Amino acid sequence: MSVITEFIPVATRGYTDIIDITQNVSDVIKNSSLKNGIATIFVSGSTAGITTIEYESGLLEDLPQAFEKFAPMNIQYHHDRTWSDGNGYAHVRAALLGASFTVPFKDNKMILGTWQQIVLIDFDNRPRKRELVVQIIGE
Amino acid sequence: MSVITEFIPVATRGYTDIIDITQNVSDVIKNSSLKNGIATIFVSGSTAGITTIEYESGLLEDLPQAFEKFAPMNIQYHHDRTWSDGNGYAHVRAALLGASFTVPFKDNKMILGTWQQIVLIDFDNRPRKRELVVQIIGE
Amino acid sequence: MSVITEFIPVATRGYTDIIDITQNVSDVIKNSSLKNGIATIFVSGSTAGITTIEYESGLLEDLPQAFEKFAPMNIQYHHDRTWSDGNGYAHVRAALLGASFTVPFKDNKMILGTWQQIVLIDFDNRPRKRELVVQIIGE
Repeated sequence: MSVITEFIPVATRGYTDIIDITQNVSDVIKNSSLKNGIATIFVSGSTAGITTIEYESGLLEDLPQAFEKFAPMNIQYHHDRTWSDGNGYAHVRAALLGASFTVPFKDNKMILGTWQQIVLIDFDNRPRKRELVVQIIGE
Repeated sequence: MSVITEFIPVATRGYTDIIDITQNVSDVIKNSSLKNGIATIFVSGSTAGITTIEYESGLLEDLPQAFEKFAPMNIQYHHDRTWSDGNGYAHVRAALLGASFTVPFKDNKMILGTWQQIVLIDFDNRPRKRELVVQIIGE
Repeated sequence: MSVITEFIPVATRGYTDIIDITQNVSDVIKNSSLKNGIATIFVSGSTAGITTIEYESGLLEDLPQAFEKFAPMNIQYHHDRTWSDGNGYAHVRAALLGASFTVPFKDNKMILGTWQQIVLIDFDNRPRKRELVVQIIGE
């Protein structure tokens, strides 16, 4: 049993940009000698999150619209009174989505559905350079 | 320390069907020789998710109503233009809820509250045969 | 590789009270001899959840307002017909947020962003004594 921790830089455009990171996670597992275990995918920062979706163009429009309804960009946030950086909406969305995701792997391969990709969603109101953490524990 | 990965078939009715899977997870832990560790519960597919609730009839109505507000069934989704399968709402709800859940166990028993059950929620617009993955890592 | 499980009592005021528990998690890791691994933070009970935010006064107002929109306190819930305890909204919010959070650590230190704190959010409609579970697995 061992632990492998990799840091992967990801450039985003912000504004609820949705980026398919499945291959990045898959590579960390493949490049390891671990057969079975758990992968934790974590994004540093409080205006981005991780989840899974079917990565197709329709949902890349639908999901931002749903988040816009939950935490609209154009309303007042107390956060923006503190920092004046105008990204209060991004913090609220990210807190709800969560910065972390875990997925099991078996026989050196992630157990994902065929139409299920792992995505980083960057809610911030500017392009960002994110550091993705992929940590695998297994044997 | 070792890793055990079990696949559990679960039949659902779809339409935000909420199914108590606590016993399934509990059985995997009990049938193992592991005393302490973490259980990861994962659902393959992009129209279902995992969380915990108090499993009682009132909440089985309240939770679908809240999801209906967040991502209504009867509005237009770009996803449905792509596939015409009418389950865009299900994808959006599942992405928000998350396909994965982790819970610690100690002395061969999950650490859950008395009124806290682990549930699979299937948002899809038809009955589905889901494959639940329960992976435990521990000693 | 070993597993350490700690139980940490946390008193809350309820009503979507947001409590910074970063130091509690950090202490469990520091007090262990583990260098690299994963920390699972779990809250027993079905009316509270765990996530990360930038812990500043503005967001401590914004986040409850967003949850109020998603699952308002003053509407009717079927749950309240069952138990008459008036906290149906709290169950719905907690199910959405999730009772569990995982974060990797490396060199005996959590990998968190500078402005990213781990928080317990208690949605219940009264002060509660919560039991936080922090479990670390690593080497």
